Amino acid sequence: MRLVTYVIKEDVLNIRSEVHGDARIGWVQDGYVWDIGFAQEWAILEKGIPFPRALPTDMVAFLETGANGLVWLRQVIDACRGTQPDQVKVEGEPVALSLAEVRLLPPVPRPPSFRDFYAFEQHVKTARARRGLDMIPEWYHFPVFYFSNHQTILAHEQPVSRPSGTQCLDYELEVACIIGKKGRNIPRESAREYIAGLCILNDWSARDVQLEEMKVGLGPAKGKDFATSLGPWLVTLDELEDRRNGDHWDLAMTARVNGVELSHGNLRDLHFSFSEMIERASQDVFLYPGDVIGSGTVGTGCILELGTEVHRWLEPGDVIELEVERLGVLRNRIVERCD
Amino acid sequence: MRLVTYVIKEDVLNIRSEVHGDARIGWVQDGYVWDIGFAQEWAILEKGIPFPRALPTDMVAFLETGANGLVWLRQVIDACRGTQPDQVKVEGEPVALSLAEVRLLPPVPRPPSFRDFYAFEQHVKTARARRGLDMIPEWYHFPVFYFSNHQTILAHEQPVSRPSGTQCLDYELEVACIIGKKGRNIPRESAREYIAGLCILNDWSARDVQLEEMKVGLGPAKGKDFATSLGPWLVTLDELEDRRNGDHWDLAMTARVNGVELSHGNLRDLHFSFSEMIERASQDVFLYPGDVIGSGTVGTGCILELGTEVHRWLEPGDVIELEVERLGVLRNRIVERCD
Repeated sequence: MRLVTYVIKEDVLNIRSEVHGDARIGWVQDGYVWDIGFAQEWAILEKGIPFPRALPTDMVAFLETGANGLVWLRQVIDACRGTQPDQVKVEGEPVALSLAEVRLLPPVPRPPSFRDFYAFEQHVKTARARRGLDMIPEWYHFPVFYFSNHQTILAHEQPVSRPSGTQCLDYELEVACIIGKKGRNIPRESAREYIAGLCILNDWSARDVQLEEMKVGLGPAKGKDFATSLGPWLVTLDELEDRRNGDHWDLAMTARVNGVELSHGNLRDLHFSFSEMIERASQDVFLYPGDVIGSGTVGTGCILELGTEVHRWLEPGDVIELEVERLGVLRNRIVERCD
Repeated sequence: MRLVTYVIKEDVLNIRSEVHGDARIGWVQDGYVWDIGFAQEWAILEKGIPFPRALPTDMVAFLETGANGLVWLRQVIDACRGTQPDQVKVEGEPVALSLAEVRLLPPVPRPPSFRDFYAFEQHVKTARARRGLDMIPEWYHFPVFYFSNHQTILAHEQPVSRPSGTQCLDYELEVACIIGKKGRNIPRESAREYIAGLCILNDWSARDVQLEEMKVGLGPAKGKDFATSLGPWLVTLDELEDRRNGDHWDLAMTARVNGVELSHGNLRDLHFSFSEMIERASQDVFLYPGDVIGSGTVGTGCILELGTEVHRWLEPGDVIELEVERLGVLRNRIVERCD
């Protein structure tokens, strides 16, 4: 399933006007967003399928329903299968809208937390070599992360304001896993059960700000706290099963700036798997449904690593597209700050 | 006002049994916790004071009511003034309970976020000198912070489990300011308006874990993510006005381990004021009511800085008390992990 959080576009009139402006959740199929709550209503009314409870309209609340929620959602999707999106209506209103009629929000608009790891070896090696630094032996001992700002998550197609204090705006091509089940001290062997799915993550970075603050030793904060893009949708693991090898997935990753491909890598090149990251993150602390775990940047996945001789820093007007096989395209345009 | 989040202790029977186990908010006065919601009901019923709405029972929701909420709360407190705590009842149930009858939660049990700064010069200098490092020139340029785990906040008197992987457990004596108003790009000149109040913060640290992970350059994460104590209450700024000098407060800070004083400093020694920290934190991003901004450790405020020749690392059974003038005492006992 490809799960989204969405709102109906303001100019789509007379369609479910009572939920205009409300964020709701759906699944994406053949260019349509099917509303989970309305589709469940339809399955009850038209197909007579009984459900023990209504599915939530919020992604974190949906993830909290756990395995039960997924089973019910599959029943809803099965009930809708074979119908035309414009034929499925509740009280005369369509259950599905075309992607053009909705605005996507981040699949988890308000994640409870956001940890970003640093788990691709090539990125760490090259980025350090550019600064004349050797590889850190401790990097191989355990996966390392930092907490970043979970309050500034942006969606696919949402403009990214260049922060006022930077001349060196960069993108970072990453994949995130979204936690689906509460847990603590999760061993890597069972960690996959705690993953709701994967999505693309762009960890926007102000390199000049980051470089300055990191000299003080507390890691990156203002250099990365202004924006992180997540999307376009959350892809559940069942969609990726044929690309899985143990705890790794074989998914090509690319980044384009204004249509020119700059970065290419593969999720299978992670030195530490998401399962190992979850083991580390959950040691002594709880992870919660909706928590975001970033992979870190794939090799070649940012301008810092490629060098400004390959591409200048990002500027207002630039369009950055991150594409990951099976996960879609996450596109954002840089704009000048307007506040 | 000294604001708390609390629950009625399990063994306090027959008192408001309908809210047994529910977290509620109150103010502390002369050894009693006055429930804000019940006291407002009493003020309406017994004193005939009209209020435009009921005050929330959750601290973040209360802070979100902003200046209006504070005005209404002051009316409630004024209405109760001069009465005996055991005389003020709603439907036969007491509005106030003695501190012995309640269990305090962190004043903000689920803060939306937690940033910890590094703003006391002596701590940074001494901690670096212990590792043979010079002071960092950039430290003086701007206040630097890292995001820490806002999902593991502990209360006054709540046991602290020693993480499984550490032999070097430490405390850190800090003060936190709690954000009271949503804002972005807040200039230091008006930043005090965004502070709801101050409270004591203990940023528990596993020094061996922290030292290892920090070599990788992303700052502290697992070394500090397992627990942070906050409390015992949130003291609003009006209580501290006579100790204010510009954007600083003259409040003595001490830490005791098993009754022996190890740390002593003063909040006025902050090199960067909370106003400057708020200016930095809010650059390009929103701060929200309930967000926690830690000061960083005061000089002498942890074993790392004092040296293990002064005190060994913390062990199960140790009782750590942080005391800050006007803000109270924040006490926690270390226990062995039991999961």
